[in-house]
Amino acid sequence: MAEERNQTPRPWKETKVVGKPLPRVDAYERVSGSAVYPSDVSLPDMLYGAILRCPHAHARVKSVDTSEAEKMPGIRAVITGKTAEAQIDWPFSQNVKAKLFDSRCRFEGEEVAAVAAETPYQAQDALKAIKVDYEVLPFVVDERKSLEAGAPAVHDGGNRVSPTQSYERGDVEKGFAEADVVLEETYRTESEIHTPMEVHGCVAKWDRDRLTVWESTQGVYPVQARVAEVLGLPLSGVRVIGHYMGGGFGSKLQPGKYTIIAALLAKKTARPVKFFLTREETYLCVGNRPPSNMRLKAGVKKDGALTALDFNVIGTGGAYPAGGVSSVDWLVKDLYLCPNVRSRMTDVYINAGPARPFRAPGHPQGAWALEQMMDALAEAIHMDPVQFRLKNIPSYSQAREGKPPYTTTGLKRCLEEGAKAFGWEEARRRGLGSRENGHIIKGVGMASGLWVAGGGGGPSTVIVKLLSDGSANLNMGASDIGTGTKTVMAMVVSEELGIPLTKIHIEYADTGTTQYATASGGSKTVPTESPAVRAAALHVRQQLFEIAARELKVAPSDLILSGGEVVSQSDPSKKVRVTQISELRRRGVIVGVGLRGPNPVNKVVTPFVAQFCEVEVNTKTGEVKVLRFLSSNDSGRVMNRLTYDNTVFGGITMGIGLGLTEARVLDGNRTGKIVNKNWHDYKVPTALDVPADMISVPVEMEDAEANTTGAKGLGEPVTIPTAPAIANAVYHATGVRVTTTPINPLQLCELLAKRRKEG
Amino acid sequence: MAEERNQTPRPWKETKVVGKPLPRVDAYERVSGSAVYPSDVSLPDMLYGAILRCPHAHARVKSVDTSEAEKMPGIRAVITGKTAEAQIDWPFSQNVKAKLFDSRCRFEGEEVAAVAAETPYQAQDALKAIKVDYEVLPFVVDERKSLEAGAPAVHDGGNRVSPTQSYERGDVEKGFAEADVVLEETYRTESEIHTPMEVHGCVAKWDRDRLTVWESTQGVYPVQARVAEVLGLPLSGVRVIGHYMGGGFGSKLQPGKYTIIAALLAKKTARPVKFFLTREETYLCVGNRPPSNMRLKAGVKKDGALTALDFNVIGTGGAYPAGGVSSVDWLVKDLYLCPNVRSRMTDVYINAGPARPFRAPGHPQGAWALEQMMDALAEAIHMDPVQFRLKNIPSYSQAREGKPPYTTTGLKRCLEEGAKAFGWEEARRRGLGSRENGHIIKGVGMASGLWVAGGGGGPSTVIVKLLSDGSANLNMGASDIGTGTKTVMAMVVSEELGIPLTKIHIEYADTGTTQYATASGGSKTVPTESPAVRAAALHVRQQLFEIAARELKVAPSDLILSGGEVVSQSDPSKKVRVTQISELRRRGVIVGVGLRGPNPVNKVVTPFVAQFCEVEVNTKTGEVKVLRFLSSNDSGRVMNRLTYDNTVFGGITMGIGLGLTEARVLDGNRTGKIVNKNWHDYKVPTALDVPADMISVPVEMEDAEANTTGAKGLGEPVTIPTAPAIANAVYHATGVRVTTTPINPLQLCELLAKRRKEG
Repeated sequence: MAEERNQTPRPWKETKVVGKPLPRVDAYERVSGSAVYPSDVSLPDMLYGAILRCPHAHARVKSVDTSEAEKMPGIRAVITGKTAEAQIDWPFSQNVKAKLFDSRCRFEGEEVAAVAAETPYQAQDALKAIKVDYEVLPFVVDERKSLEAGAPAVHDGGNRVSPTQSYERGDVEKGFAEADVVLEETYRTESEIHTPMEVHGCVAKWDRDRLTVWESTQGVYPVQARVAEVLGLPLSGVRVIGHYMGGGFGSKLQPGKYTIIAALLAKKTARPVKFFLTREETYLCVGNRPPSNMRLKAGVKKDGALTALDFNVIGTGGAYPAGGVSSVDWLVKDLYLCPNVRSRMTDVYINAGPARPFRAPGHPQGAWALEQMMDALAEAIHMDPVQFRLKNIPSYSQAREGKPPYTTTGLKRCLEEGAKAFGWEEARRRGLGSRENGHIIKGVGMASGLWVAGGGGGPSTVIVKLLSDGSANLNMGASDIGTGTKTVMAMVVSEELGIPLTKIHIEYADTGTTQYATASGGSKTVPTESPAVRAAALHVRQQLFEIAARELKVAPSDLILSGGEVVSQSDPSKKVRVTQISELRRRGVIVGVGLRGPNPVNKVVTPFVAQFCEVEVNTKTGEVKVLRFLSSNDSGRVMNRLTYDNTVFGGITMGIGLGLTEARVLDGNRTGKIVNKNWHDYKVPTALDVPADMISVPVEMEDAEANTTGAKGLGEPVTIPTAPAIANAVYHATGVRVTTTPINPLQLCELLAKRRKEG
Repeated sequence: MAEERNQTPRPWKETKVVGKPLPRVDAYERVSGSAVYPSDVSLPDMLYGAILRCPHAHARVKSVDTSEAEKMPGIRAVITGKTAEAQIDWPFSQNVKAKLFDSRCRFEGEEVAAVAAETPYQAQDALKAIKVDYEVLPFVVDERKSLEAGAPAVHDGGNRVSPTQSYERGDVEKGFAEADVVLEETYRTESEIHTPMEVHGCVAKWDRDRLTVWESTQGVYPVQARVAEVLGLPLSGVRVIGHYMGGGFGSKLQPGKYTIIAALLAKKTARPVKFFLTREETYLCVGNRPPSNMRLKAGVKKDGALTALDFNVIGTGGAYPAGGVSSVDWLVKDLYLCPNVRSRMTDVYINAGPARPFRAPGHPQGAWALEQMMDALAEAIHMDPVQFRLKNIPSYSQAREGKPPYTTTGLKRCLEEGAKAFGWEEARRRGLGSRENGHIIKGVGMASGLWVAGGGGGPSTVIVKLLSDGSANLNMGASDIGTGTKTVMAMVVSEELGIPLTKIHIEYADTGTTQYATASGGSKTVPTESPAVRAAALHVRQQLFEIAARELKVAPSDLILSGGEVVSQSDPSKKVRVTQISELRRRGVIVGVGLRGPNPVNKVVTPFVAQFCEVEVNTKTGEVKVLRFLSSNDSGRVMNRLTYDNTVFGGITMGIGLGLTEARVLDGNRTGKIVNKNWHDYKVPTALDVPADMISVPVEMEDAEANTTGAKGLGEPVTIPTAPAIANAVYHATGVRVTTTPINPLQLCELLAKRRKEG
């Protein structure tokens, strides 16, 4: 079928639509409020759910008394770990057996009971009336203390999640022996909370034994699969709809316990149940970027060649982890051409909420260590940081010894073109000069990165319908998680079929009605879906040419599409308007099916990035202001310059959060609880915290091997080196190396004071 | 694509699922109330619309004052013929130019103004506050008087819709000359109102310039096309959703003015607008089976051969008709092998609501005349009515002189097998005997019919997705209008892929997300869609075999599907469970696309029917009770015996309505208004009005030429001969020929009294 037909099309030479800075096709709905997000879904007879959560970092639930709650007005169902329908396993954490409502609560916020009520207020009131007898247990919330003798065991098997992950190439000791300079430093990144604009949640509704879930999610199909698995339903018995969603950043790749609980309450009450978490709950239980404790030792020759990297990581995914140290060492292993590399990563349990993938899992943490170390090494050998990196970056053919080469690598161009556009050399000099100007001092810094998973990957099926009036319908299962996916896909259809964006209707992210797609995450949505969309559009065009050829009595291969007409190339007088093709009018529609083709064999697709920034440090208050930030990205083809730049700016903003403002604070001494579980005390950067002067410098390299549209992925690479670029700029301004995120006034004042004392 | 692949599959020899009496896949939703019909749709911020309708049969709107209504609480918009956004043409009536709100109202109920309010009550209150100055005009509401000199003109061009339609074959005068008996009679059928359980209406919502309409409809695509046309939008800019609907019977094949008005009000207020008519309004303005006045002259030889039929019809589609005499003469022309046939049909305007297709347009009207005439002719030549019909019915090869032959014709078997199952001969004798037994007398009667449009017809596209756990998703654009379409289509998927019905999820009737289909009507939904569904399922199976063949290292043609496993026929040890095929697990889905193949060339597909009934007449009260009713149908393959029988019983019930109870009553003398526009005064048969003893006798003939499933269509043929069968039974019991519907106590008492007087 479409698979056979879709012989790999030629790469675009010139494009009329793709690449242009076009506003989003759904901009109006999104800004006007007419878009129905899952949290806007309102069904007749709908109930509201709420969850009672353990207030302790570690406790055993001895008994739960719901009798009073059940009698309260508007309460329609109460379930606990003892309720028949809630005796369900929750098997989604490494090496851990747990229940949906586990009798041992291993973090503040673990689920203890749930209610469904006529109003959200009645539901919250009922939670307060549930009496729980807890046996409070000793806790450990600092991963650095988790393996200490006498530390409380989070799980019966002890606090080590799995054996230490090891990697080694070359001979690290020999590498250090060959080095002219060896530096060693300890780094730490604090835990970040995803805290997307739309909180996590869903609406669940049953039709007999078929469940429909409106979920705020990055991927309707993974949600379908997990819900079906937990509830023992066929995939066809679970429909997941998520037409819009208000941010996920990795925390909405899977359903939560709230999804299952909503479904159970809806089943029990035979009414739809809406279940959206409170903001506070999203800090407790739906994921975080876990903290990383990293020690990096590096050796370099005077000429700038890295000789050895030795990396040690202790990380955690909390009490129910799924990869607490995942990919933290990726940059250390892969970003630079260092012959001798060793990495050791240890993943431990602590009494904290579970980690989830968070925009470029592990990479920003590793970059925080590696890219500050690179800065320090460059200084030690009196080399410019950009030049030092250029010295150590892989060129195309030699990349990744013993591993498949990249399809394209634009890191050299990112560094060179980014530095040029930023005015790096001049700024570096000027920045140095400004160090001594009163208590407001400036500095510039830079860092680079790559992202492990470029170019996307199937499976994906897309359907494009050409309607008889020449308008089109695009049906795809992928979610637009706020990045402009719909817009880019409409542009691909427009490119191939010459249909204006206003005449392309897009249906997406519904397991019942749209086609199969993987979750939107990992910077892979555009590179995964756009080739499938292109294949579907080409399949339509091919059929259109076949029926038009019969009407015009020419060969299909003689036809082109131009201005809404199908025209013979050999005899341009032979032409017909698409809307006048009688077979199309009769059939009403042409259906094109597109599959995502295979990934390149024995090659790796990887996006690259280099970032440059200028900061201003107030040495009296410790405040750091980012004045200017430039990101130069090799993400393959730029599909839409406007959404591209917006993704760049968003990634920088999020990186500024990691570098300057965000940190989950656990009370390690007395309670083990989060002390800043709200937007007031947990600081997410606002418009006032990011520079007005953000610059996007795409390095667009044709990558015909990556896939049939040449997009490599942007969302994650753009946030990876941001925090260390800022840290390097702060160092450039102040001479103070801040090794623990965030570089907030408190920490920076202490470090500046210490330096003044020492200096 | 699928078109090429779908080489016509062989007809089913034996079926495991198709044909079985299986309950509906959506029975639970429908009976539990969890199914969301358009009238259940509730959106946040939704307003409610209401329409002010002209209370006169004919009037000119001189002025409309909405100032007071606009000030009333909760009123958010008021539109009239003078409002800017409502200056819209409504071009959907033959030879008539009219506006959405026309300044001349040509029937009671024509639209004058509309409001949108926060509650339905506020909307109704506001209507009362709108002041309209009408110039009341003379009216004509009886089509028999419409062409009289001095009759008021409904439209400026006079009351003739179009030239009289004529048909003639052979030489009618010669035919009458050859006849041994010539009879002539005048018949009339009264107008019926569709009055489906769910009233007509919609919910309209805009996202900028894209409109979504939840419409209670038989066909989302025709609604999309008409709404797009009226509002000047691309097809892609109008999404129509109608997942369930509560009955249409032909009156919901197109959107109403209410749909456009809802859209206009939603646009004006930037809020969703819900617009469902009141029951009363559905009597006025959304369609009816128009009245027919028929004069039939027939000649027959003593041996039973028809020699001539001469048919004259005056009909009307009301003030804005679309085919007021459509197909009334079809049976006269086509049901019997008569060499000399003439038909004249005249369509006129009257000041009444517009006609719409109504279950078998024209056919029951024509059957009322023809089948009573056949009964009279049989009596005149002393021949049994069944034998008389058998004498005159076409056999396969000789059918329809000069026209293409039928693919199959089961009328002979319907008559013979129906008569046998009914016990016709014995009942006829017994019935005659019972005539004299007091004032309760019994009789039996029969009639037969055919339906013009059998076997369905494309275009239709269907998608079947096989999911990795072996469950499936069926995506089709056709509406299930209550007949069990979803169930039958799921059975076809189950037949070809061996998947139980509980693991097949069906998405349907949504122009945004499902595939192209024509409206559900004309008894063509199952014959149109089931071949497309079969093609899609076979396309899945073919791909499944291709990937399983790679895994099993056999040829795809060697594989069969059995019990959830793909098995090699040549080496049954080579097999794999569908759910274990690694490529399916990796891809997540197999997408099958099916198109409806072409109709047979130079042949006609036609369903046939013969019906038999026994009635009891109370000669004192004039009440007629149908004691027993049998319908024998040749509708090709029986796809599901349970939904088949239910369709038969529903058609009989509706035919009983035409024959015994239903008639729109217009006050022709004083006002021209409907006097019975409610369920109390307009009598729809209830369970107490139909016999407990309803019998379905399918005559299942293999029709491999009709289409790839062999279904020919059932919904309409089954209601065509019902009313005349009852009339013939009443005649058999009483000797009174009732030529005007309905045979209600008032009419029958009068006729019986007249007969007693004459007799």
